[in-house]
Amino acid sequence: MAKLPRVVTLLTDFTARDGYVASMKGVLLSRAPGVTIVDISHEIRHADVLAGAYVLDQVIDYFPPGTVHVVVIDPGVGTDRHILAARYGGQTIVAPDNGVITLVDARLPLENIVSVRQGQFALPDRVGLTFDGRDVMAPVAAALLTGTHISELGPAPATCKLLEIPEARSTDGIVRGEILYIDGFGNCVSNIAWRHVDKELSMAHLHVRAGEHEIGPIVGSYAHVQSGGPLALFNSIGVLEIAVNGGSAAETLGLKLGDPVVVAPETPA
Amino acid sequence: MAKLPRVVTLLTDFTARDGYVASMKGVLLSRAPGVTIVDISHEIRHADVLAGAYVLDQVIDYFPPGTVHVVVIDPGVGTDRHILAARYGGQTIVAPDNGVITLVDARLPLENIVSVRQGQFALPDRVGLTFDGRDVMAPVAAALLTGTHISELGPAPATCKLLEIPEARSTDGIVRGEILYIDGFGNCVSNIAWRHVDKELSMAHLHVRAGEHEIGPIVGSYAHVQSGGPLALFNSIGVLEIAVNGGSAAETLGLKLGDPVVVAPETPA
Amino acid sequence: MAKLPRVVTLLTDFTARDGYVASMKGVLLSRAPGVTIVDISHEIRHADVLAGAYVLDQVIDYFPPGTVHVVVIDPGVGTDRHILAARYGGQTIVAPDNGVITLVDARLPLENIVSVRQGQFALPDRVGLTFDGRDVMAPVAAALLTGTHISELGPAPATCKLLEIPEARSTDGIVRGEILYIDGFGNCVSNIAWRHVDKELSMAHLHVRAGEHEIGPIVGSYAHVQSGGPLALFNSIGVLEIAVNGGSAAETLGLKLGDPVVVAPETPA
Repeated sequence: MAKLPRVVTLLTDFTARDGYVASMKGVLLSRAPGVTIVDISHEIRHADVLAGAYVLDQVIDYFPPGTVHVVVIDPGVGTDRHILAARYGGQTIVAPDNGVITLVDARLPLENIVSVRQGQFALPDRVGLTFDGRDVMAPVAAALLTGTHISELGPAPATCKLLEIPEARSTDGIVRGEILYIDGFGNCVSNIAWRHVDKELSMAHLHVRAGEHEIGPIVGSYAHVQSGGPLALFNSIGVLEIAVNGGSAAETLGLKLGDPVVVAPETPA
Repeated sequence: MAKLPRVVTLLTDFTARDGYVASMKGVLLSRAPGVTIVDISHEIRHADVLAGAYVLDQVIDYFPPGTVHVVVIDPGVGTDRHILAARYGGQTIVAPDNGVITLVDARLPLENIVSVRQGQFALPDRVGLTFDGRDVMAPVAAALLTGTHISELGPAPATCKLLEIPEARSTDGIVRGEILYIDGFGNCVSNIAWRHVDKELSMAHLHVRAGEHEIGPIVGSYAHVQSGGPLALFNSIGVLEIAVNGGSAAETLGLKLGDPVVVAPETPA
Repeated sequence: MAKLPRVVTLLTDFTARDGYVASMKGVLLSRAPGVTIVDISHEIRHADVLAGAYVLDQVIDYFPPGTVHVVVIDPGVGTDRHILAARYGGQTIVAPDNGVITLVDARLPLENIVSVRQGQFALPDRVGLTFDGRDVMAPVAAALLTGTHISELGPAPATCKLLEIPEARSTDGIVRGEILYIDGFGNCVSNIAWRHVDKELSMAHLHVRAGEHEIGPIVGSYAHVQSGGPLALFNSIGVLEIAVNGGSAAETLGLKLGDPVVVAPETPA
């Protein structure tokens, strides 16, 4: 299997409009010829580290061993913030030390985190200090893809930055969480997972409220309510989501990041 | 030629913002290593099955034999709608049974349509019922790309859903059609093809009307009228299109889906 | 190294919404199987040849030898404008003769420019005259990627169109330029490069003005000013850029293409 092309992914807030992403791809293909490049997203809201963390967490388990993920959501570029490389299962993440690895780390604590010696791995002819994605992170990823071991990249950091992400709380059978992410459809994703909900209750006998809105029971798919109707379901990553069938929950219901989501047993009429 | 990487395309309404498309790519690269992935579009209007059908029809003939096309415009996800696999020439389409294959089928009736046994081919650890693109269609495509024959995927379906797409009509040398698709430039694409037009008439002696607007004769390229001017031409897939040179016909002329388009011999002044 | 997949890039104003880009990729994969395709951008403003020139110039040096760049920003499609192929170092550019090669040519005059014999290289079954990207430029790129020498594509053209791009001027230690490009973050990129600035002056003792706004000294990174504050820096391609930390300089400061940018020694208070 050694001949198979290895996979590198890119997750940025660069948008697809300019050449920033392409110049990173040029560096990767110059230094790790034959590598397969996958775009995760380049439409993360500018400098929104939490949204980047959410999307990385959502996709990483679907990639094959050996994949290197390069995350360039990097409001601190040009400052002395570190660049990290970290092992997750058989994969590797290269990212600024700004918390974007938080959700992945919470599921399976990252092993072998190192702080990259940037001077050693940067492009020799780098121009300016504003594009470490191209000048440092892409060369580091190319090194990993062509046989460099993570331990060669630098020493373990003294500390790593992690985001404080609100955790859903369950009290007396009532689960209280909040909206953590809003996707491109306007679906509002909460921090309430399967494990927070009392498994002895049928989903159909639970009632969901989001912001000021009574949503109803938890259903199995978007099509379980009529077009335009609101619904709550455990989504494709197993997290409770508020949606509108064929529409945008964020727009229709006026929901926004941080709005409360409550799951409670149905009140007998 | 067996060593060449095979090609799989993705056509969805997911937008490029979230990780949905990337998790499908992760599944494909995990189960069919070395495959070449091509994005057709992820910006189809949400749940717009006709627009997906149009774009699939527009591109499919340009792909090499062996290509697998995965179409995830799927408002019925989570319901009991089937997932189809169908042969088109030497290529294969994997799509929900919602009519998105209609235009391709109209050109060359699809062979070997099967209804996929979803339980057999789904990811073993699937989470939720809302993302068959990742959990069923990507694994089915990977199976096809690694040697599974379409007949192994499931039985022939009793029926397939096809969209009722209005056909242009030609009467007494006058062709009446309508706008079927509006592209990202604002070009308004009709359902009038070369074959509807009387070939004995010179294109320059035909007159086109769209909605309430007199467009003029049929020209050969956008640059045949002055900048900002409206025009009608047979476009890059051989279909009559209303455009504005350097602008958006949809905005400038206020055209929308379903608006009538009429081609008639020029009236002598 | 001959077995490595060769790289072809695409730079267009097609947007990612329709199937236009994908049909070009289908042609490339049909005629040059196994090639690696990289999207540079498909979001160049419609028919904005200067923006395309800027983005091509920004990325080209990062790609490996043998790369073929296909640029389809082509308001003259369907007219008798030529299609050029040109060598740049070990790479090749295929583009309409409309000036999109201007900035690359200014840095390193292009060698071996030829005017493509379109009839000879076009798809045999081309439909319409409105999509030379798919019908001519993709086949030409595939020919180059599979061993055709540039000299086989056609003769040297009598002339090539080049854009007149305003050059920054330095007089008495004061550099006067203008805004040439605005990127997806709203960063306003000028035509003032390192070489225009008197190297004997410390960057911290230079003062930048853009449009009506006093920006301040030249700093090293976006994070050198507080969030929301304006700044000037030499950006990731070594050109002076006006930015707002965490925001859009174009929106916040109302800057637009062509607005003056002036760098002068700090006036003693």
